[in-house]
Amino acid sequence: MTSAKYDVLTIGNAIVDIIARAEDDFLVANDINKGAMNLIDAERAKLLYSAMGPAIEASGGSAANTAAGVASLGGSAAYFGKVADDHLGGVFAHDIKAAGVDFFTKPLDENPPTARSMIFVTPDGERSMNTYLGACVELGPEDIDSDMVAESSITYFEGYLWDPPRAKEAIRLAAEIAHNNGRQVSMTLSDSFCVDRYRDEFLNLMRSRTVDIVFANEAELKSLYQTSSFDSGIAAVREDCTLAVITRSELGSVVVTFEKTHVVEAIPAENLIDTTGAGDLYAAGFLYGLTHGMSDAECARLGGLAATEVIQQMGPRPQVRLADVAAEAGFQIKD
Amino acid sequence: MTSAKYDVLTIGNAIVDIIARAEDDFLVANDINKGAMNLIDAERAKLLYSAMGPAIEASGGSAANTAAGVASLGGSAAYFGKVADDHLGGVFAHDIKAAGVDFFTKPLDENPPTARSMIFVTPDGERSMNTYLGACVELGPEDIDSDMVAESSITYFEGYLWDPPRAKEAIRLAAEIAHNNGRQVSMTLSDSFCVDRYRDEFLNLMRSRTVDIVFANEAELKSLYQTSSFDSGIAAVREDCTLAVITRSELGSVVVTFEKTHVVEAIPAENLIDTTGAGDLYAAGFLYGLTHGMSDAECARLGGLAATEVIQQMGPRPQVRLADVAAEAGFQIKD
Repeated sequence: MTSAKYDVLTIGNAIVDIIARAEDDFLVANDINKGAMNLIDAERAKLLYSAMGPAIEASGGSAANTAAGVASLGGSAAYFGKVADDHLGGVFAHDIKAAGVDFFTKPLDENPPTARSMIFVTPDGERSMNTYLGACVELGPEDIDSDMVAESSITYFEGYLWDPPRAKEAIRLAAEIAHNNGRQVSMTLSDSFCVDRYRDEFLNLMRSRTVDIVFANEAELKSLYQTSSFDSGIAAVREDCTLAVITRSELGSVVVTFEKTHVVEAIPAENLIDTTGAGDLYAAGFLYGLTHGMSDAECARLGGLAATEVIQQMGPRPQVRLADVAAEAGFQIKD
Repeated sequence: MTSAKYDVLTIGNAIVDIIARAEDDFLVANDINKGAMNLIDAERAKLLYSAMGPAIEASGGSAANTAAGVASLGGSAAYFGKVADDHLGGVFAHDIKAAGVDFFTKPLDENPPTARSMIFVTPDGERSMNTYLGACVELGPEDIDSDMVAESSITYFEGYLWDPPRAKEAIRLAAEIAHNNGRQVSMTLSDSFCVDRYRDEFLNLMRSRTVDIVFANEAELKSLYQTSSFDSGIAAVREDCTLAVITRSELGSVVVTFEKTHVVEAIPAENLIDTTGAGDLYAAGFLYGLTHGMSDAECARLGGLAATEVIQQMGPRPQVRLADVAAEAGFQIKD
């Protein structure tokens, strides 16, 4: 394996978040699955926006947030994802490039428009997402830049990519290129409902070793193995991938390899505002650590630190430089 | 004077804010007046955006923030301001209506596009604005809905409206309608550089009693009277309007009438994040109080409370309901 140009390349649905506070009653009245990513069409997007309170807009997209997080820690990152050549597409491209991430995916000339997710943040800080995929449905193998994949230590993608029709072909191609170049492939299971939609395909990605490193939260792990027992989930995932990283919110995270299990404590959040981006930033911290020679436990602690930072603000990407936060917390971050 | 449909009607430049953190060096390198509102053209807007870090977007506009603040306190508010029929215009209209403010100003069909202000927030929390006025330049007397003015206890406008060419005609018309209906007219001096551009016209608005109530911060007051002495400024403004409200950041505020001067302490901010909207929300709290029978000192305290709330977050409008914040602080807020 030669040295890599990028620590982490991420691939995902390119989305701008529209974020507002809402009461739990609002979720019930509008038939929104709390804590989940709800897919919506253009008509429902219009309807929900008209019912939504005053909002702020911030670039999001799970894997894009992870790339921005890696860059914010001082790592080298790239991103593939599809926007349209419209206002929100310009905002998305500006923000990810301004975060220091290489992003060259060709935008769509016209319709459908850039994806957006209406995110309702309830008083408990939980976020419930309502995503109109728009231009994301056009991501395909033609958007995979082979050289960039070959030059990335880790190619990471989101399970959400199984929702648009052709992105899975893009992922299989990227995984093949990565492995042919001695690189690693990682995925996040994204959302327990998403796991429910694509359980067999996700298990197949893992068991075929298309994916080496899997990120999941407790609900996603349980959904994957259709078990109510966390320990059964851990035992099962140990057999199915090289490295599994399971996050448990305030209970911390668990790093699972064939030989070992590391349980790492969470870093408490003084002021929980909005959980949007927590898992994405955890992955960013972990992957930064992994590509910078940290131990599994250190990777998990850095992931926890990045997640704790992002949940203490509105929006999915930290507004402060994570390299500074990590250095202050005693991590050896190279500048 | 009959009872009013609206407590406060505000008129201003309808702007979407694009907010990012920046170091002081960035302001120097890009020739940005720190703490000020810098007017820019479309070309410079493009240039600055390309140099700007990752941003969030949030509806802004000084007087619009004030209207949203009045509504957030549970008051009745309306707004006049010009957007274009484009993406940002839709965002602006959504947010102000979702805040509970009546907003019916006809958008421009096409160019220029909706105004935007690139706001750089330095580590000290100070905001430096760079505003491309876009569609705002088309606001004119035809946008003044006479009935709405007649039905508003107070019509409030921003000094910034002297920058676009025809808005001052709209303001003179609105003031005439308001006074003919026994209502009051209020303005904010907006910005010390703005005062410098229109000093004589602002003084004339006050001395002709076109304006009854003036809001200013210390720098704007000093600029208005071209004095370095705060006390001289206070003495001068006492002669020039019925009620003057001077804000002094952490030193609190001073309420000045012909007979009296009230000095009211600030409410300390535990965690200063971004000063954007501080003056606008102060005015919201004060005007809510004034239209709900509070004493001058209570009005000033409520203004201070609303300002302290907004500077502890990113963005110009509080993400929490101000009526709740005020009730918790012991104010008698009717729901």
